[in-house]
Amino acid sequence: MGEVIYTGKAKQMWSTDDPEVLRVVYMDQATALNGKKKDQIKGKGQINNEISTLVFEYLAKQGIKTHFIKKLSPTEELVHKVEIIPLEAVTRNIATGHFVTRFGVEDGLVFETPVEETYYKSDALDDPFINESQTLALGLATKAELTEIWELSRKTNQLLTELFAKADLTLVDFKLEFGRLSDGTLVLADEFSPDNCRLWDKKTKAHMDKDVYRQDLGELTPVYEEVLARLQQALKEEK
Amino acid sequence: MGEVIYTGKAKQMWSTDDPEVLRVVYMDQATALNGKKKDQIKGKGQINNEISTLVFEYLAKQGIKTHFIKKLSPTEELVHKVEIIPLEAVTRNIATGHFVTRFGVEDGLVFETPVEETYYKSDALDDPFINESQTLALGLATKAELTEIWELSRKTNQLLTELFAKADLTLVDFKLEFGRLSDGTLVLADEFSPDNCRLWDKKTKAHMDKDVYRQDLGELTPVYEEVLARLQQALKEEK
Ligand SMILES: Nc1ncnc2c1ncn2[C@@H]1O[C@H](COP(=O)(O)OP(=O)(O)O)[C@@H](O)[C@H]1O
Ligand SMILES: Nc1ncnc2c1ncn2[C@@H]1O[C@H](COP(=O)(O)OP(=O)(O)O)[C@@H](O)[C@H]1O
Ligand SMILES: [Mg+2]
Ligand SMILES: [Mg+2]
Repeated sequence: MGEVIYTGKAKQMWSTDDPEVLRVVYMDQATALNGKKKDQIKGKGQINNEISTLVFEYLAKQGIKTHFIKKLSPTEELVHKVEIIPLEAVTRNIATGHFVTRFGVEDGLVFETPVEETYYKSDALDDPFINESQTLALGLATKAELTEIWELSRKTNQLLTELFAKADLTLVDFKLEFGRLSDGTLVLADEFSPDNCRLWDKKTKAHMDKDVYRQDLGELTPVYEEVLARLQQALKEEK
Repeated sequence: MGEVIYTGKAKQMWSTDDPEVLRVVYMDQATALNGKKKDQIKGKGQINNEISTLVFEYLAKQGIKTHFIKKLSPTEELVHKVEIIPLEAVTRNIATGHFVTRFGVEDGLVFETPVEETYYKSDALDDPFINESQTLALGLATKAELTEIWELSRKTNQLLTELFAKADLTLVDFKLEFGRLSDGTLVLADEFSPDNCRLWDKKTKAHMDKDVYRQDLGELTPVYEEVLARLQQALKEEK
């Protein structure tokens, strides 16, 4: 079974017999405000594992290098162990949330070119917003890695904007994490689920993501299930 | 005499007979915490005008394009009117202040390459830290202008680090503002004084800048006078 090597806010990482492979366990936990708000939400782990598996397999098929190996069980997957680059790479297609309060623009403003932001992944420091010059000065990533991170983020944005559109969902913004395999290759890591992106229903504009939890808009699980069902349908029609 | 066209936290801008020229009046006022702390400090306006005049004339001689025309009186100068780019361009040679609390590094850490940051000049928004992608999305400056801003900032950093070193002062960090002349030329604007840079005495490491006011370390005017006297001495020796 291996050992727990890290317990995060949404997932647990376990070692396996292979030192280069980890087992990820998706937990039934939701957090917001950097952990200050926290709840157990039955079924969330399972749905996120399914959505993330679907998205990572889709991206891999389109040529994006990822850490994903395979889904193991309803709540578990196997991934290549990486050295995580401690940055959250955020892409925004539409202004909402923090961006709106920070810069005083209209909620829903569509950017001509998507906005790209990084946050320094550090619970102790409250994940501060960080720019490229600061990232290089702190040695969190090299210039070449940052270039690759944004190339992969842009390609991911194109692919997923299209995929979610087929599911009648607008991909508003999302957060990615990247890491280095033991041979130094940079790959997309962590997860892709409604926990770390914003999805708006194309027709009703309803929130179909963690904002339902952040803003106490109702039950989370049915919303995530709807996202999963629509994605499955969209992929079926594609074939 | 013209009319007041803007009253800021440290200076008043007046129109003149020439629509492309402004008269700047340096006020005896110090503010910190984005205006939340505010005091009248006798003599400060005059010293800052003298220091800024000295620095801008020095930079102009070394080929930096600036808005500066000439000193008019102890507290006044004439400048070319510009359309200010609403960004504070901060360069850090050494980590201190906000950088230290934000990123948890050691106070006094010397950067291998200076760190460059921009803040969106907006009192209403509390001057938020902003990255390049956000700056472009908000249309605050073009990519070409940002490139020029950092080229000018780097050259200014080299020149002033040397100048202050001759005055036995370490230039720790500083903030610059830039603007466009009516023909579109980008020039260094605003001021350069101990109000918007950090200077540490080379021997004692004492604060010789607005941190004396921010941290209530004693009287401000004698400190600024000492900076001015040392700069004048350094320039005299240069000739
Ligand atoms: N392939 C991987 N190898 C090693 N660590 C990973 C990998 N993928 C993701 N991680 C890290 O594992 C943790 C996943 O748990 P999570 O609950 O998301 O944690 P957190 O609360 O830090 O966001 C994160 O810290 C993430 O950066
Ligand atoms: N050459 C110039 N032309 C027009 N505006 C300028 C010029 N130089 C500086 N400014 C602007 O004039 C104001 C100077 O007053 P100040 O007290 O520094 O204001 P603030 O409180 O906004 O920092 C600033 O807003 C600055 O951006
Ligand atoms: Mg996480
Ligand atoms: Mg000012």
